[in-house]
Amino acid sequence: MARPDGREIDQLRPVGIQRGWLSHAEGSVLVEFGGTRVLCAASVQTSVPRWRRDSGLGWVTAEYAMLPRATNTRNDRESVKGKLGGRTQEISRLIGRSLRACVDFKALGENTIILDCDVLEADGGTRTAAITGAYVALADAVGWLRERKLVRADPLIASVAAVSVGVVEGEPRLDLCYEEDVAAGTDMNVVCTGDGKFVEVQGTAEGRPFDRAELDALLDLAAGGCADLTRIQKEALGRS
Amino acid sequence: MARPDGREIDQLRPVGIQRGWLSHAEGSVLVEFGGTRVLCAASVQTSVPRWRRDSGLGWVTAEYAMLPRATNTRNDRESVKGKLGGRTQEISRLIGRSLRACVDFKALGENTIILDCDVLEADGGTRTAAITGAYVALADAVGWLRERKLVRADPLIASVAAVSVGVVEGEPRLDLCYEEDVAAGTDMNVVCTGDGKFVEVQGTAEGRPFDRAELDALLDLAAGGCADLTRIQKEALGRS
Amino acid sequence: MARPDGREIDQLRPVGIQRGWLSHAEGSVLVEFGGTRVLCAASVQTSVPRWRRDSGLGWVTAEYAMLPRATNTRNDRESVKGKLGGRTQEISRLIGRSLRACVDFKALGENTIILDCDVLEADGGTRTAAITGAYVALADAVGWLRERKLVRADPLIASVAAVSVGVVEGEPRLDLCYEEDVAAGTDMNVVCTGDGKFVEVQGTAEGRPFDRAELDALLDLAAGGCADLTRIQKEALGRS
Amino acid sequence: MARPDGREIDQLRPVGIQRGWLSHAEGSVLVEFGGTRVLCAASVQTSVPRWRRDSGLGWVTAEYAMLPRATNTRNDRESVKGKLGGRTQEISRLIGRSLRACVDFKALGENTIILDCDVLEADGGTRTAAITGAYVALADAVGWLRERKLVRADPLIASVAAVSVGVVEGEPRLDLCYEEDVAAGTDMNVVCTGDGKFVEVQGTAEGRPFDRAELDALLDLAAGGCADLTRIQKEALGRS
Amino acid sequence: MARPDGREIDQLRPVGIQRGWLSHAEGSVLVEFGGTRVLCAASVQTSVPRWRRDSGLGWVTAEYAMLPRATNTRNDRESVKGKLGGRTQEISRLIGRSLRACVDFKALGENTIILDCDVLEADGGTRTAAITGAYVALADAVGWLRERKLVRADPLIASVAAVSVGVVEGEPRLDLCYEEDVAAGTDMNVVCTGDGKFVEVQGTAEGRPFDRAELDALLDLAAGGCADLTRIQKEALGRS
Amino acid sequence: MARPDGREIDQLRPVGIQRGWLSHAEGSVLVEFGGTRVLCAASVQTSVPRWRRDSGLGWVTAEYAMLPRATNTRNDRESVKGKLGGRTQEISRLIGRSLRACVDFKALGENTIILDCDVLEADGGTRTAAITGAYVALADAVGWLRERKLVRADPLIASVAAVSVGVVEGEPRLDLCYEEDVAAGTDMNVVCTGDGKFVEVQGTAEGRPFDRAELDALLDLAAGGCADLTRIQKEALGRS
Repeated sequence: MARPDGREIDQLRPVGIQRGWLSHAEGSVLVEFGGTRVLCAASVQTSVPRWRRDSGLGWVTAEYAMLPRATNTRNDRESVKGKLGGRTQEISRLIGRSLRACVDFKALGENTIILDCDVLEADGGTRTAAITGAYVALADAVGWLRERKLVRADPLIASVAAVSVGVVEGEPRLDLCYEEDVAAGTDMNVVCTGDGKFVEVQGTAEGRPFDRAELDALLDLAAGGCADLTRIQKEALGRS
Repeated sequence: MARPDGREIDQLRPVGIQRGWLSHAEGSVLVEFGGTRVLCAASVQTSVPRWRRDSGLGWVTAEYAMLPRATNTRNDRESVKGKLGGRTQEISRLIGRSLRACVDFKALGENTIILDCDVLEADGGTRTAAITGAYVALADAVGWLRERKLVRADPLIASVAAVSVGVVEGEPRLDLCYEEDVAAGTDMNVVCTGDGKFVEVQGTAEGRPFDRAELDALLDLAAGGCADLTRIQKEALGRS
Repeated sequence: MARPDGREIDQLRPVGIQRGWLSHAEGSVLVEFGGTRVLCAASVQTSVPRWRRDSGLGWVTAEYAMLPRATNTRNDRESVKGKLGGRTQEISRLIGRSLRACVDFKALGENTIILDCDVLEADGGTRTAAITGAYVALADAVGWLRERKLVRADPLIASVAAVSVGVVEGEPRLDLCYEEDVAAGTDMNVVCTGDGKFVEVQGTAEGRPFDRAELDALLDLAAGGCADLTRIQKEALGRS
Repeated sequence: MARPDGREIDQLRPVGIQRGWLSHAEGSVLVEFGGTRVLCAASVQTSVPRWRRDSGLGWVTAEYAMLPRATNTRNDRESVKGKLGGRTQEISRLIGRSLRACVDFKALGENTIILDCDVLEADGGTRTAAITGAYVALADAVGWLRERKLVRADPLIASVAAVSVGVVEGEPRLDLCYEEDVAAGTDMNVVCTGDGKFVEVQGTAEGRPFDRAELDALLDLAAGGCADLTRIQKEALGRS
Repeated sequence: MARPDGREIDQLRPVGIQRGWLSHAEGSVLVEFGGTRVLCAASVQTSVPRWRRDSGLGWVTAEYAMLPRATNTRNDRESVKGKLGGRTQEISRLIGRSLRACVDFKALGENTIILDCDVLEADGGTRTAAITGAYVALADAVGWLRERKLVRADPLIASVAAVSVGVVEGEPRLDLCYEEDVAAGTDMNVVCTGDGKFVEVQGTAEGRPFDRAELDALLDLAAGGCADLTRIQKEALGRS
Repeated sequence: MARPDGREIDQLRPVGIQRGWLSHAEGSVLVEFGGTRVLCAASVQTSVPRWRRDSGLGWVTAEYAMLPRATNTRNDRESVKGKLGGRTQEISRLIGRSLRACVDFKALGENTIILDCDVLEADGGTRTAAITGAYVALADAVGWLRERKLVRADPLIASVAAVSVGVVEGEPRLDLCYEEDVAAGTDMNVVCTGDGKFVEVQGTAEGRPFDRAELDALLDLAAGGCADLTRIQKEALGRS
C-alpha cells in the first residue's frame, strides 16, 4: 500500500535544518520534518537551578509547546488555561532527558542551557523533530560558550537524533506524518546517539498489542532513520 | 542626532508581510517590522462565545504572546508560571479591540475569528506589528469565509494598521526599535483605519510628562506611518 | 441634548475626597466622583522589591479591584476564580504608572508605597477616580514618612489627577457616568500633572473611529477637568 | 483588670448598622463593632446553583474577604496570589451556614441570595460583625423580593446574630477587640438565633485548654451579647 | 430508637490503632473508627518555616486529604482541580491546632513535625479519627527525636483525642457513623486533652438550632468518648 | 554481584494482591511489589465524558498519585502546590493507556471506569505495581457491571501486567527496588498482555546509552516477569 506522500517505508520526509534563525538566542534552529516545523532556541544561563548549586555541574533542560494554530483545529493556549497539559510536560521531559545524554556536566560547569522547542506547524513527529533540531541548537550554544572560553573542556560527548516509527496497515514505516500517525496500530519514538545506541525507546500499542517481531522491525527502521538524521545534522553543523 | 539604524524620523523600518505562512490556518501572516517578527494566525470557528449566542452577530478576538527567547534574555513561559501577565492581557485586549473596528458583526454572522499573534522575535513595536499583520490575516480569513459562502455580505468595513511613536532625545520619532523604546521619554501606540481615523491612541510618559505640542507632533507622525502601512497592507493583499 | 444629571458638558460630577478614612493605613482616602466611590489606601513598606534592592531607589505600585456588588449585577470575585482579569491588571498598571510620575525615587529612598484602590461602588470613571484619590493618599503617606524623618528630601515632585472624556450622541463630554460611558462612541482617559502636562492619554473608539478634531476637543475637555480636580485635591490636602 | 477601652466584661463595643449603604445591591449594610467595619451586600439572583435546580428550593451563600489594608500591616490580595486562603474559606462557610439557619428554602423558591461581607477595617470580631450585619442585609433582600412578589411566603423564619467571647487574663469577656483577641487563652465565636438558641459554637484553646466551667461562663456571656445584638438589629430594621 | 449498628448512645465504634504502618515515616498510624480508616504519617524536618526561624521554637502542622474513592461516590482530586477545597483546609487547620496543644515548642527546638492524615475510607468522623490517630503518630515521631537526642526535654506536654457527637432523632449520640451524621440535626466535634480539658468545641446546627440543655448533653457525651479514646491511645503506645 | 535482597536477576519481589480492600469501590486492590504498596480503586460511572457521548462506547481512565510520605523524605502535596507535576500526569496517562488495551469499549457501553492508583508506600516500581493491581480492580469492576447486567457482553478482552527492568552494575535485572532503580544505567518499564504481547515499552538511558543486545536482554526479562505476574493475577481473581 502506498504511503500518502509516496515515500518508501524506510524513507524520511524532506528534512530542513536552518541554523541561526533567531538573532538573540545563543543557538537557534528552524527544523522541518516535512510539514512539521519546530523553532528550537538554546538559551545559555551562567547559573544553575538551586538544587544544583555548588556542585560544579551544569544542567540542560527543555520546554516544548505548540502554537495554538499549529494544528488543523485551534487548541486553547495552556497559558490561558493556566496549566500545562500532561502531553506537554511529558514531551518536555523527554526532550530534556534526550539532550542530557549528549552532555558532560562537569565540562559544562555551572551553566544551564535551556532548549525551547515551539511547534509552529504540526504534521506528525513534532517531538522527534524537536529533539533532532534542539541538538543542533545545543551544539551552537556550546560553540558560543567555547568561543567565549566560558567552559574549559568540550561539554558535548555525543549527538542525538530522534524519529518516529509505526505499524500502519500492518506495515512498519519510518517517520510517520499526521495522517499515518492517526492510523497507526503501534507507534514508537526512538532517540539514538550518533554512534547508533539507544537513549529512549517509547513504544505504544495504540490499537492492538504488538509482538516481538514487530518491535524488532520497528527498532531496525528507527535506527536507520536516526543514522540518516545524524548525517543531516552533521552537514548542517558543517555549514556556517 | 542620528537614529541607531540611520532612518529619518518619519521613516518606518523595513516592513515585510508574508501571507499564507501556515498551511492549516484560514489566514496567516509573518509580519516583520525591522527585527520584530510576529506570526499572526486567523482561525475561523463557526460558532460564537456563549454570551453572544442567538444574537445573529459574530465575534473577533485576539491572543498575543511572546516566545520565551524572542527577547535578549529569556523570559519564563506564562503557561509554566500558570498565569497570564498583565502586559500580555493588555496587548491581547488592544489587538482584539483594534480588529473589531474593521468588522460588521451582522455580516459576519455567528462566526468567530480568533487572531493568534505570537512574537517570534522582538525588537520594539511588537503590538503594532501584531495589529498590522493580524489585519491581513483577518482579511484572508474573511476571504476564506466568502469563498465558501459562509457569510452573506462582506464583513470587512475598514482596514487597520498600527505604529509606535515616541520622543527620543527630545525628538519625536516614528516606529521605535527596542533601543529607542528604552530611551524614550514618551511612548505612544496609535491604531488608525485605512482612511486615517483613530481607533486607539495610547500615550504614556515614561520619564517626563509631555505637553500638547509634543502630543500633536507624535499624532502627526503616527498618522503618516499608519498611512504608509495601509499602503503596504494593500500591496500584500493585492498579490495572491 | 441634556446629560442624564443635567450637567454642562465640561462639568465634573460632585467630587468628594475624605482623607483618613482608615485608621491603620499611612494614607487613606474615600474618593467620590458622583455615584462612584473608591477607597484608596496607601501602605508604606520600608523595603523595595527584590529587583530594586541596593539601588538606593524607592518604588510605588498600585492594585485596583472592585467589590463584587459595586456594579448593578454581581461579578464573581477574582480571588474565587483564582486569577486576575485583564481589565483589573490593566487598570492597576495604569494607576501605578500615573503615580510614579509624581515621585522622585531617589528622595523616597528604599521605601515602597503601595496604593490599594478598591471600588466600593461603580458609576463610571472608576479608574480616574482611583488615580485622583490615590494621589491624595500618596501625599499623606509621604507626609507620614517626612514626619518620621524616614526620607531626606521631599519625594513628591508633581501631583496627578485623572478624568474620563467621551463622545456621547456626537457631543464631547467630561467625566462620563456609567450610562454615558455605555453610550459613548469614543472613550478616553487622561491623566495630567498639576501643571497641565500629560502623563497618560488612552483613547478608544468604542463604536466608530474618531478624527483629529474630535480628539482635540476631548483633550481640551480633559485638560480642563484635570485642572479642576487638581484644585479640589489641593483643598483636600489643605484641610487637616 | 480593666479592658483596653474600659468596657464591662459583658458589654459590647458601640455597634453601628447603616442600611442601604450601596445603591445597586438588593440589601446592604455597613456594620461596625467598635473599630471593625464590614460592608455586607446581599445580591438576589433569580436562579439556583446547578445541583439545586428543579428542587423548588432556594439557596443562600456567603463570601467573606478582607481588603489588603484592613489590618495594621498590609496583606497580599488573594486574587493576586491566585488562591483563597483557608481562613477566608472557613469564615465564608461559617457565615453561609449561619444565615441558612434563618431561611425557609421552600418559601424562598428557586432564588439565590449571596451575601458578600468585605472587611474594610479590622479590629477583632470581623466574622461575628459580618454575620450580624449580613442578617440585616439578608432581611432587606428578602423585603425586596416580597415587595416584587417574587416569593409566595415569608422565607425568613429566624434572625441570627453573632459575637466573640474569650478568656483574657483569666477573665471571660464579651466581644474582644484585636488587642484582647491576641491575648486570649481561649477564643469562642457563637451564633445565636433571635430566640436564644445556638446555631454555631466554635471554641478554640489558643494557649491553654479550657475546662467546663470556663466554657459555661463563655456561653452565658455570648448568649447575652447575642440578645443585645438581636435588639440592635431589630431597631435598625425598624427604621426605614 | 436503635442505632444502625446497635451501639449504646455513649458507645464508640470499634477503634483500631496500628502503629508503624509505614516504613519511611518517623511515626505512622492506621487508625480505624468503625468503617473509617485514616492513615496518619508524622514527618520530622530539622528546620522550621521561614517566619519561625531563629526563634528557638519548633512547629507542628497537619494536612488532611481524602482519597477519591474513600466515599460512596467518587470525588475529583483536589490536585487535578488545582485547588484545595474549603472543607479540606478547614480540617487541616483544625488538626494542626489540636496537635499544637500537645507540644512545648521550646522543648521541640527548631524542628517541624508534619502530620499527614489521608482518609483511605470514610464512614463519618474522619476528622476526629485523624486527630486521635495523628496524636499517636506524633508521639512516635517525638520518640524518634528523643532516641536520637535531637531534643533536649520532652516536647509532649499533653495528649489529645477527638470525637464527634450529635443529636439524631432527638437523641444525643456519641461517635456518629455516616448514616447518622447525615441525619443529625446538630453535629459537634470535640477535641479534649488526656486530662479532660477542651481544646476545640465545634458545634453546628445542621437542621434546627439547639438549646443549652442539648449542648450540655453533647458535651458530656463527648468528654466521656474522649476519655475512652485516651485510654485506647495509651494502650497502643504501651505496646511496642 | 548480589542484589540487595538476594534475588535472582529474573526473580520478582514478593507480590501481594488483596482484593476488596475498600468497601465502597466497585473494585479495589492493595497491590504489593516488595516494599511498594499501591491502593487501586475502580469506580464505575454510568456515563462517559462529554466528547464520548452518544458514541455507544465506554471509557477507561486512570489517576496516579503518591501520598506525601510514601517516600523516604516527604514530598509536598500536588493539591497544595495547586498543580499536577509532569511525572504524575505521565504515569496517569501510561496506566490509562495500558488498561484501555484490555477493554472492548463497545461491550462496555456508555460507562466509564476510573482507576485511582494511590501509592501508600514506594520502593521502586510504583507505576508497574499500579498497572498490575489496577487490572485486577478493573476486572472486579467489570464483574460488578456484569452481575448487575449493566453490560451486554464481556468488555474484558485481555489482561495486562507490568514490570520494570534495568541494567544495574552492567547486569540486566527484573523488578528493580528503589536502591537498584537509582543505580540503574538503563531503566525500562514494560506492559504486556496476558498472552505475551507488548502494550508499552518505555526504555530510558539514565546514565549511558544502551545497545541493541542490552535492549533485547531487558525485553526477555520483562516478558518473563509479566508472565509471572499474569499467573499471580489469575490466582488472585480465582479466589473470591
